Amino acid sequence: MDGALPPASPAGLSAYVAVSQLLGLTLLATTGAWLGRYRGGVAWHSPLQFNVHPLCMVLGMVFLQGDALLVYRVFRHEAKHSTKVLHVLLHGLALVIALVGIVAVFESHRAKGIPDMYSLHSWCGMAAFVLYLLQWLLGCGFFLFPGASFSLRGRYKPQHVFFGIALFALSIAACLLGITEMLLFNIRDSYSHFVPEGVLANTLGVLLVAFGLVVGYVLTRDDWKRPPLAEELALSMDFKTLTEGESPGG
Amino acid sequence: MDGALPPASPAGLSAYVAVSQLLGLTLLATTGAWLGRYRGGVAWHSPLQFNVHPLCMVLGMVFLQGDALLVYRVFRHEAKHSTKVLHVLLHGLALVIALVGIVAVFESHRAKGIPDMYSLHSWCGMAAFVLYLLQWLLGCGFFLFPGASFSLRGRYKPQHVFFGIALFALSIAACLLGITEMLLFNIRDSYSHFVPEGVLANTLGVLLVAFGLVVGYVLTRDDWKRPPLAEELALSMDFKTLTEGESPGG
Repeated sequence: MDGALPPASPAGLSAYVAVSQLLGLTLLATTGAWLGRYRGGVAWHSPLQFNVHPLCMVLGMVFLQGDALLVYRVFRHEAKHSTKVLHVLLHGLALVIALVGIVAVFESHRAKGIPDMYSLHSWCGMAAFVLYLLQWLLGCGFFLFPGASFSLRGRYKPQHVFFGIALFALSIAACLLGITEMLLFNIRDSYSHFVPEGVLANTLGVLLVAFGLVVGYVLTRDDWKRPPLAEELALSMDFKTLTEGESPGG
Repeated sequence: MDGALPPASPAGLSAYVAVSQLLGLTLLATTGAWLGRYRGGVAWHSPLQFNVHPLCMVLGMVFLQGDALLVYRVFRHEAKHSTKVLHVLLHGLALVIALVGIVAVFESHRAKGIPDMYSLHSWCGMAAFVLYLLQWLLGCGFFLFPGASFSLRGRYKPQHVFFGIALFALSIAACLLGITEMLLFNIRDSYSHFVPEGVLANTLGVLLVAFGLVVGYVLTRDDWKRPPLAEELALSMDFKTLTEGESPGG
């Protein structure tokens, strides 16, 4: 830091984060509107139990997962340990909510005699959830509990970051598949006539993609990343010295 | 370069690229097997014209688009201009093949009296195609034709890279949606009984995700990137000096 005042966030970062949060809240409102207006609402012990599933997955696997990814950008000037704890807790909350959503769909299937896990949506969604849980456990093991050396953490971190963004993308893709399945099961014949439910659910899909794009942009923009430790910088310098002298990409 | 011999590729890069190509060819074979074994094959002037669509989209929007993204990693020691031309040509070929696939589905819809552009698959797929074409035109304008200054190119390049990977991911998501639609239109009642066609098409979906993950990993791994120009390195050093002194993420 260059003074007593905390350094300002880079230009644009706050605006992008604000847009992401507006999109996230709109996602939840749109999901609620779809379920409330066209699908009878949400309840646990009733034929409406299925509707808990899309609500929980959009909240847990998309909105909260996305926000958990953003904390290192939003709180880039806060103490590292507090930010890390918030990152872990938000992902943990996302996992619990997603688990409730998964239980809801399995119980609803059992009540209606519908088989489980046959569709591409269920394959992608279950893969996203299981790998997300694994990633959370590995993240806790490497970064939260003492024991992992600095060099071990440094070697795992790029994998953690890559799979974090990849699983977020896969979670959004699984939601898009779920929207398509739900529409084709419920309004197959009228969907092609641009009925309001179809347009609303498609719009939810577009909002999911937009949320993913904005979060992905904030996460991957180089000059918005947390500045590296002096040791990390030194290592990166060594590497650059070794590989320099090539013609660049363009 | 540090001698007369060309520098070796970083450890692992060749293996990942080989796996990506095996996955890509398996994608095409699986798509062909699905269409040939269960959907009557592929032909232009016939009721089978629809089947040209999935084949062209997997080939153009996934396999060729992915390979076009990889050329800067695979040919990282070749002359920059030749690599750039290959990058442009592969993306151009992907766009032409995708256009054939889009014409196929519109003509097939017209022949059968099916409305266009009502589904989430069509919204996501069309958005991916139009933005991909726009990205290609912008890329040509900035990087291929002389005129854009070094600093203008440097400022656009991160956007070009981010949207390149994001559109690749959106293209894969659109394919997954297309698979789900096609299965629910054709084998809705037997899909839940794990019939071979459903399992094969779901497997195609998993292969698409796997191809996306491997290509994405190769593209984003820091030490596999083309080394930057001296000027770019200097700019990046200036920025690091400005932002140093913060505690790191991790």
